[in-house]
Amino acid sequence: MADGTKVQDFTVTTGPLPASKKVHVEGKRHKNIAVAMREIALDDPEMPSIRVYDPSGPYTDPAQAIDIRKGLPRLRYDWIVARGDVEHYDGRSVKPEDNGFSSAKQDPFVEFPSKPAQPLRAKGGKAVTQLAYARAGIITAEMEYIAIRENMGRAAAGTAPSGGESFGADIPAYVTPEFVRDEIARGRAIIPNNINHPESEPMIIGRNFLVKINANIGNSAVTSTAAEEVDKMVWATRWGADTVMDLSTGTNIHNIREWIVRNSPVPIGTVPIYQALEKVGGVAEDLTWEIYRDTLIEQCEQGVDYFTVHAGVRLPYIPMTAKRMTGIVSRGGAIMAKWCLSHHKESFLYERFEEICELLKAYDVAFSLGDGLRPGSIADANDEAQFAELRTLGELTKIAWQHDVQVMIEGPGHVPMHKIKANMDEQLKHCDEAPFYTLGPLTTDIAPGYDHITSGIGAAMIGWFGTAMLCYVTPKEHLGLPDRDDVKVGVVTYKIAAHAADLAKGLPAAQERDDALSKARFEFRWRDQFHLSLDPETALLYHDETLPAEGAKVAHFCSMCGPKFCSMKITQDVRDYAASGMAEMAQAFKDTGGQIYQDKDKLAEKAKQLPAAE
Amino acid sequence: MADGTKVQDFTVTTGPLPASKKVHVEGKRHKNIAVAMREIALDDPEMPSIRVYDPSGPYTDPAQAIDIRKGLPRLRYDWIVARGDVEHYDGRSVKPEDNGFSSAKQDPFVEFPSKPAQPLRAKGGKAVTQLAYARAGIITAEMEYIAIRENMGRAAAGTAPSGGESFGADIPAYVTPEFVRDEIARGRAIIPNNINHPESEPMIIGRNFLVKINANIGNSAVTSTAAEEVDKMVWATRWGADTVMDLSTGTNIHNIREWIVRNSPVPIGTVPIYQALEKVGGVAEDLTWEIYRDTLIEQCEQGVDYFTVHAGVRLPYIPMTAKRMTGIVSRGGAIMAKWCLSHHKESFLYERFEEICELLKAYDVAFSLGDGLRPGSIADANDEAQFAELRTLGELTKIAWQHDVQVMIEGPGHVPMHKIKANMDEQLKHCDEAPFYTLGPLTTDIAPGYDHITSGIGAAMIGWFGTAMLCYVTPKEHLGLPDRDDVKVGVVTYKIAAHAADLAKGLPAAQERDDALSKARFEFRWRDQFHLSLDPETALLYHDETLPAEGAKVAHFCSMCGPKFCSMKITQDVRDYAASGMAEMAQAFKDTGGQIYQDKDKLAEKAKQLPAAE
Repeated sequence: MADGTKVQDFTVTTGPLPASKKVHVEGKRHKNIAVAMREIALDDPEMPSIRVYDPSGPYTDPAQAIDIRKGLPRLRYDWIVARGDVEHYDGRSVKPEDNGFSSAKQDPFVEFPSKPAQPLRAKGGKAVTQLAYARAGIITAEMEYIAIRENMGRAAAGTAPSGGESFGADIPAYVTPEFVRDEIARGRAIIPNNINHPESEPMIIGRNFLVKINANIGNSAVTSTAAEEVDKMVWATRWGADTVMDLSTGTNIHNIREWIVRNSPVPIGTVPIYQALEKVGGVAEDLTWEIYRDTLIEQCEQGVDYFTVHAGVRLPYIPMTAKRMTGIVSRGGAIMAKWCLSHHKESFLYERFEEICELLKAYDVAFSLGDGLRPGSIADANDEAQFAELRTLGELTKIAWQHDVQVMIEGPGHVPMHKIKANMDEQLKHCDEAPFYTLGPLTTDIAPGYDHITSGIGAAMIGWFGTAMLCYVTPKEHLGLPDRDDVKVGVVTYKIAAHAADLAKGLPAAQERDDALSKARFEFRWRDQFHLSLDPETALLYHDETLPAEGAKVAHFCSMCGPKFCSMKITQDVRDYAASGMAEMAQAFKDTGGQIYQDKDKLAEKAKQLPAAE
Repeated sequence: MADGTKVQDFTVTTGPLPASKKVHVEGKRHKNIAVAMREIALDDPEMPSIRVYDPSGPYTDPAQAIDIRKGLPRLRYDWIVARGDVEHYDGRSVKPEDNGFSSAKQDPFVEFPSKPAQPLRAKGGKAVTQLAYARAGIITAEMEYIAIRENMGRAAAGTAPSGGESFGADIPAYVTPEFVRDEIARGRAIIPNNINHPESEPMIIGRNFLVKINANIGNSAVTSTAAEEVDKMVWATRWGADTVMDLSTGTNIHNIREWIVRNSPVPIGTVPIYQALEKVGGVAEDLTWEIYRDTLIEQCEQGVDYFTVHAGVRLPYIPMTAKRMTGIVSRGGAIMAKWCLSHHKESFLYERFEEICELLKAYDVAFSLGDGLRPGSIADANDEAQFAELRTLGELTKIAWQHDVQVMIEGPGHVPMHKIKANMDEQLKHCDEAPFYTLGPLTTDIAPGYDHITSGIGAAMIGWFGTAMLCYVTPKEHLGLPDRDDVKVGVVTYKIAAHAADLAKGLPAAQERDDALSKARFEFRWRDQFHLSLDPETALLYHDETLPAEGAKVAHFCSMCGPKFCSMKITQDVRDYAASGMAEMAQAFKDTGGQIYQDKDKLAEKAKQLPAAE
């Protein structure tokens, strides 16, 4: 197993999506940045190409050679080192237990072959976080990259969708590097990018930016291998995942993570308590602060960009969950609850929170404060336990900020529609607008197998209300681990939710792609319609199931109505009619108008004479 | 083709869903009614069975023999005849053009072999509508059937979900036959059940009842056969479709519809203008009132339960669509627009509206006033054309009510989230709470292949706001005709949307199934979890992909976390802890509490001293 043959199994999907190419927009302030975007060319030569946000990294760029055994180019390394506040050092040695093995056993799993020799850390207690820089008034390369990226290459403000409702967000017409800096400084957005993950392209999470989505991957004790997880990570970003969480449990956690981080163009999040628990053989009571701290260092050095830390699961809140329909459903929350109960002690995550902050600020790892007491069913939504924890997360947010550490807050879970807004309102109130990062929420419990949909509804709504990042849910939720197909369905569903939220918030130019696609649809540019869609492959496949002939892709009809019945064709007559001259039309109206309006009046008068229908 | 062999191709899916049986609840007022429901038995003998709403009819009842060539039992025939206000008569003869053939051609398609000899109609100009009966204070068998059905067999009021928000709806704790009658009389709900479709089980559409869903089926000029459409109809109701619209175009419309109506346990809706257009060779200009009227009579006699009539597409509104991104996307709307433009005349549907009312009241066919000017893209949502038409639909609603004809109103379409509520508010205002029946709405245009999801989001929201019935959208929307799999995905997605809306509106007992499923999940009753879900087959399949062993279905863990990591197991410890005596716990808190709360105070104090993060 350790002979390296496993390496051969690592295959990922590369190459551009149909009609798309990678383009790069250079920075003005930082000349060494080139912001990657996807440009979709249209069949109609008179229509401009459309640029879209693209988290897929070098994998969709044919100009870049991909070698999974080497990892991605270290895009941000020079930027980081140029700031002069970091140093290389001999990192912590990898131990057998990092991969879940006793020292007596051999590691049966191949290590990543091109691991960096030394990790980076802040020099002498400095904060090397984007928050610290922003507070110091510095516009980093990362910030400028993000400003260009969020504008999707537009040189000026776009046209916002009419009447957007942002519920008090502060969405600019055009994103400047200064705006990015100010939002980071205010704590209202975060840039998760560990200095030891220079392969990632900078991205931002905050309510005044495009809504982002996260895809969870990871093996479990029951199934899945590292090759599958790397493939899923690349696959998830291909379809639009903005960050990926590696939730692996079981053996080889360290090795799997190394493969993922070195090859990931997006920030990677983890839940370090999962690995810590593996190190104590799965016995929650045996966890200690020392083991947890050592795990944090291990992951900081590897380059994890954000940590879910369930520091809000406090001892006094745990009994509040006793009468719940589904108790504690967060794994991390349950682990900490068990620890607290067994020792009858306050959580070490809560008690040692400031020590955790000091660690994270030396690598610029962001907190994702976990909602360990999130509701796991409609019956438990918005209860005392959930909101008690949320208030504590608000308290911890302010402590993290004091340490210059970036923070976002995790949210539920299972929440019926009428209780979703309260989640956002409470979060904004208690966490002072730190970004909210929610799982769904699922709006009903009765559809296992379709929980990407039950939760996509809630995700779109809470995204509209102000959630900055939506954690996807796949069709396998509650039933099994997602495979490749599930990952894609989960990602596309959440891209829909995020984009629907962007439209409803009134984000400038969010509607450009809708308009381009609808125009293509109206003009029977079938290929453009496919190419502009979130999943061009599926759109084409579905079309071809009924009309596979190549000619049908330029036909002025489709299989739903057939050639004689097309409403879109009829609209052309309407346009011709309207264009045939308003004067002529007015005359025509006059000629016939008497009759028309007489009828209308007649009907209206009759309506008045009627008794109210009851 | 006409030799009858085609008959052999009619196969449909029968038999109960897993762990389910058909139960019947008898009426109190009308002793001859037996309301069909589905009862799901649970593995846990201490848990009561769960009764759920069930539109699948006799197909899921093993006690009933199914013969597609004979059609379903005529459940309501005796009720209808007993009222003494209807008569049999020699109906209109079927003409070759009803099936799209010139008289010179032979009909190549097999006719339904057991067509009723004579249709029914009202005697001497009487209104035989449920609206007329309700206004006369009569509680019909249909009304009592519905009251029992809406309560799902509960003998008394259930517990409403906490804090439901119904936006001014008038939802009762328990549905009585009197309440059904009053809602019908008020025009706030409809019971679509043509006296010539006695096979259907009574159901109600109104904002104070369970949210319903419709599934569209139908062939087109390009593809699909009658056998496929009957199969889809049965299949759609198996998964929960409350009504089915037959949108067939092309040839054999009449025959296909006969097969569908005679075999449908749910109301059937159509758009009669589609068939009228076929009769004039697809040339909209050649449509006449006489041909349309004749088509209405044909379909009234066949038993269609509601007609989409685009009577709100008025001549003066048509130029309002000229500058739209996607013009007119409703087929019926486009046909009428073309007719109006060609003749430069007001729509005959609008001008002859009262004549249409007089026809419909003789058979109790309900209006579904079509939104022919609905937006077909995000860009066109809530525009002048759309709302002008809606106001006209409000005007027509009152006219229909004067004629004792039941009415619902169709709604959009493509609408971004922030513009959805205005649709509901305008509809309630102008249409005086007549039931709203919406297509989606789709909340973004950029996801062809996933429009069940883009629209499921909008459907759940508008259902919450007050829409009474949601017209499903399948993954094939905009791309092709749905096949069987698409129909199922569309129906399940819309059941999710409708149920999420019921929960949010606070409908009593809507949450019972969620609670039962979540309890099963928490207690690792895997089979119960599958059986209680909207799609037990998919839930089981997905589970078995990772843990196929039969033992895993009683295992106290799942593939997501594995045996050591289960949060639900840990919650049991929390319960034991909470149950171990509050006194003991209090003492424990006291013993350690000083330290805990000291920490809390310490942290809170520190937090106060911090500068506001900015």
